[in-house]
Amino acid sequence: MKTYSLGLDFGTNSCRSLIVDLDNGQELASQVVPYPSWQDGVFLDSKDPNVARQEAEDYLFSMRESVRGAIDRANDDDSSFDRTRIIGIGIDATGSSPMPVNEEGLPLSQTPEFKGNPDAMVWLWKDHSSFAEAAQITELAEKERPRYLAKIGGIYSSEWFWSKILHCKNVSPEVFKAAHSFVEICDYIPAVLAGNTKPDSIVRSICAAGHKALYSETWGGLPDKEFLSDLNSDLGGLSDRLYTKAVSSDQLAGCLCREWGEELGLNPGIAIAVGAFDAHMGAVGAGVKEGTLVKILGTSTCDIMVFPRNKKLADIPGVCGIVDGSVLPGFFGIEAGQSAVGDIFFWFVHHLVPDSYGRTVENKFKNLEKEASLQKPGEHGLLALDWNNGNRTILVDVRLSGLILGQTLHTSAHEIYRALIEATAFGALTIINRIEEYGVAVNEIINCGGLAAKNPFLLQIYADITGRPMKVSQSDQTCALGAAIFGAVAAGPEQGGFKTVEEAQKAMTGIREVYQPDKNNHFVYKDIFKLYRQLHDAFGTSSWSGSLSFVMKDLIALRETQRQED
Amino acid sequence: MKTYSLGLDFGTNSCRSLIVDLDNGQELASQVVPYPSWQDGVFLDSKDPNVARQEAEDYLFSMRESVRGAIDRANDDDSSFDRTRIIGIGIDATGSSPMPVNEEGLPLSQTPEFKGNPDAMVWLWKDHSSFAEAAQITELAEKERPRYLAKIGGIYSSEWFWSKILHCKNVSPEVFKAAHSFVEICDYIPAVLAGNTKPDSIVRSICAAGHKALYSETWGGLPDKEFLSDLNSDLGGLSDRLYTKAVSSDQLAGCLCREWGEELGLNPGIAIAVGAFDAHMGAVGAGVKEGTLVKILGTSTCDIMVFPRNKKLADIPGVCGIVDGSVLPGFFGIEAGQSAVGDIFFWFVHHLVPDSYGRTVENKFKNLEKEASLQKPGEHGLLALDWNNGNRTILVDVRLSGLILGQTLHTSAHEIYRALIEATAFGALTIINRIEEYGVAVNEIINCGGLAAKNPFLLQIYADITGRPMKVSQSDQTCALGAAIFGAVAAGPEQGGFKTVEEAQKAMTGIREVYQPDKNNHFVYKDIFKLYRQLHDAFGTSSWSGSLSFVMKDLIALRETQRQED
Repeated sequence: MKTYSLGLDFGTNSCRSLIVDLDNGQELASQVVPYPSWQDGVFLDSKDPNVARQEAEDYLFSMRESVRGAIDRANDDDSSFDRTRIIGIGIDATGSSPMPVNEEGLPLSQTPEFKGNPDAMVWLWKDHSSFAEAAQITELAEKERPRYLAKIGGIYSSEWFWSKILHCKNVSPEVFKAAHSFVEICDYIPAVLAGNTKPDSIVRSICAAGHKALYSETWGGLPDKEFLSDLNSDLGGLSDRLYTKAVSSDQLAGCLCREWGEELGLNPGIAIAVGAFDAHMGAVGAGVKEGTLVKILGTSTCDIMVFPRNKKLADIPGVCGIVDGSVLPGFFGIEAGQSAVGDIFFWFVHHLVPDSYGRTVENKFKNLEKEASLQKPGEHGLLALDWNNGNRTILVDVRLSGLILGQTLHTSAHEIYRALIEATAFGALTIINRIEEYGVAVNEIINCGGLAAKNPFLLQIYADITGRPMKVSQSDQTCALGAAIFGAVAAGPEQGGFKTVEEAQKAMTGIREVYQPDKNNHFVYKDIFKLYRQLHDAFGTSSWSGSLSFVMKDLIALRETQRQED
Repeated sequence: MKTYSLGLDFGTNSCRSLIVDLDNGQELASQVVPYPSWQDGVFLDSKDPNVARQEAEDYLFSMRESVRGAIDRANDDDSSFDRTRIIGIGIDATGSSPMPVNEEGLPLSQTPEFKGNPDAMVWLWKDHSSFAEAAQITELAEKERPRYLAKIGGIYSSEWFWSKILHCKNVSPEVFKAAHSFVEICDYIPAVLAGNTKPDSIVRSICAAGHKALYSETWGGLPDKEFLSDLNSDLGGLSDRLYTKAVSSDQLAGCLCREWGEELGLNPGIAIAVGAFDAHMGAVGAGVKEGTLVKILGTSTCDIMVFPRNKKLADIPGVCGIVDGSVLPGFFGIEAGQSAVGDIFFWFVHHLVPDSYGRTVENKFKNLEKEASLQKPGEHGLLALDWNNGNRTILVDVRLSGLILGQTLHTSAHEIYRALIEATAFGALTIINRIEEYGVAVNEIINCGGLAAKNPFLLQIYADITGRPMKVSQSDQTCALGAAIFGAVAAGPEQGGFKTVEEAQKAMTGIREVYQPDKNNHFVYKDIFKLYRQLHDAFGTSSWSGSLSFVMKDLIALRETQRQED
């Protein structure tokens, strides 16, 4: 008899539910429901572009609607489908996206006292308000606990757990005081489904804990109380109310409670896997294994690799995290990423593209791409930095910004669009080079996420700039698929699931297509990448010192060469 | 009885005729006629953005139409007007805009052999194809004739006379061979009106000769034949067919011939002043005197000062030229400028402003300005370089390009618009500082040209950034007014004109309004200017070496400060 798993993917703006056939990975039905509050579910502060918050209630609303919708669709599309044969649920979410909760596990923004207070909401991954606290944590750890930094690339980020909590303490002491604990969304949702959100009962994800909260078994869990107290005297007390153990997603977070079974139309008691971040589960859904780099290309980008825990792995400076078991059990998970990729293109199209390219965003993208694809590398004479939202890897610095140079009086929007895509590809190549320099071979690149599914033009530029084939995963929903894989593993073979993640991947993942690099284009891009690295180092590193007067001249000379070759 | 003078201003895209009352400078009537060929009268090459050419015939067509139109208007508006009381004509034109002519003075592009050949047309001032030749001239002069460079800022430009002629020789030897001579437009038009365009009869302008053709009486005129032959063996021969003497615009170029008297409806025999460049005559029309900087703000910018010839004046590196008599007789004329100002704003509005700001270019400008004027200095967090068309002063380098940095995912078009205006103001301040560092005090700044007349927002930013009052000349047509002043001086007091340029200025020029700097804004802009100078020197000078990692961080910090002060 057929069995299914349900993957729940909590993205930045919506929740996706995906029902997967465990025999072959076939995606029976999927439903996306945007978060209902504000625009795209994100609270923004017009005075401070660093702020990005969400309401946990939005997640539950969109989860309920999307699961019901997916079940309805599966019923409509496949008369043999039986929802009672869904044997497990896996959950991924953005992160680090922590929120303060009270003793019962109720989000503080749902208490009368803090309703509508942004500091009592979920601090979304891309909230950058906590940059000063991040610097403070890095500084203290450099002095007192250098081993904490070794596994997270050397710099603690403003996007992460402790920075956000410390900033909350600094700007909203009343919220901090009322917070019994702080919970990541990827831990909160499984707890809600299991019917127990009491902070000390919640099973915490090794993925969130290890990559963002300085958790490691080598030092016995979270940072020690002395270190936290040195950061802020009140932080030491909080640590007693967080957690001491975090586990990987092949483990059970609990079983579906009656109430949520009814809400979703699923059998109570089925397995709920421990949550993890979207990118990490996405990598599993894309088929990550040793030597494979999975790129999740979306509004931002996550790069995921795994490396056997029994082999020696160096610390890789600037890489977001190296965490035992965060992607696959038995492997170190390696995470890197770019703070904005699709977001940069959206910004450009929304703010700087005239209607001569089309009236809708969709048409603008189409025509920008059409014009830009006629150009050769270097023909536009432009060079950009992909830092409109800071740089996550390898600089780990949110206090950076975008840069475009090379404009003449004839530069057009589609030329800038191409330069922005190229900038994100140069950023991607910078990450690949860094990882390989530290002994982790990248033998294969699999792309997934929205841009991989929709943007062949971008993938070709990525292939040309990196000089490597760009594979695209078979599934368009690798995060939800990865979550479903973990749901099936958590359920186990006796329920019709799988014994290991590798077995599940073999049955359920694959490659759809491959973009091969063009050798001539790669040759030209090698030179432009050298210029990119000069700008990257000049504006992004305090150690750089040198000259830049050749940059504009080299780009002009290349532009002339490329145009004359027509 | 009233007397009038006619000023003819040959701009980049059109010819303006202005009839002025010599009693009080009142502008009776004015008519602008665009050049009829191509878009805005400029031949462009889609494969090479450096190319910009024009047809001399266009000038004659637009002159004829605009003079007739101005006379008709004056007749309509003032029944006492009598066109036979126009006693003189002054002419200004863009430059260096030379063209090849045959022995009769006929433009080569009007001969059957070279019709339609862009290299046989007028090489418009902003044509930048000759950058390699400019470098060659600079290099040779540094070695063999350093005195040639001392008065032109140290670097010979691709926009200038000899670079263009040498490039013509290199790319179109057949055009060069057929050229009996080369004539600047500001010399050609007076010769046409005087009825004799034979190259050896044309009275040449000291303004064009001194600023662009390395002419100086201190070395006996144009560069010596040996130097020219060293540049190219054929250039030595050409020098015999150019000129040995150039004079200032208070002198007569000739008297109006019968044919053109009839064409224009003017008395044959009236005085035609020697021509000069538009900016130089514009400075006179704006009231230039010792200590006054006149800024002509248009698609590009010219900065003009005068300094008494009997005082000691240092060479000023990077300043386009210091030429005895090029603006006012008895004074050194000092010329500096920015290669693109209005052109940058037009580029931006045409290529990168969505229709949400308006459907027409006019409405887009209006709404960009409206939104941008609500911002405080530094609030947008952006910094730009004003080099989309290279940098004329103080770097004298066309192989530079635009740069914008500081973009977030929220940066909007009006913020970039403001940053671009600020960039041009920082460029303006860089020029002022350079001139003052070399001992020429700038006690007063008078603005004129299209942007001065139309853009109070820009003038306020210029005042705030420079920390100096920005005066606006009474006339909107200072170039044509300056030309009319020279027409009146060339005619002389016996015809009802003036004895000296100073007398004519006193009667005919004035100030309309003054923008005072805001002290708080100036204080903030002083810090941003320091960052601008870092970028300026880093990308623009080969001698710079240093760090830049503070630039983005300082801008972000300033943005936060300025936003929080709301």
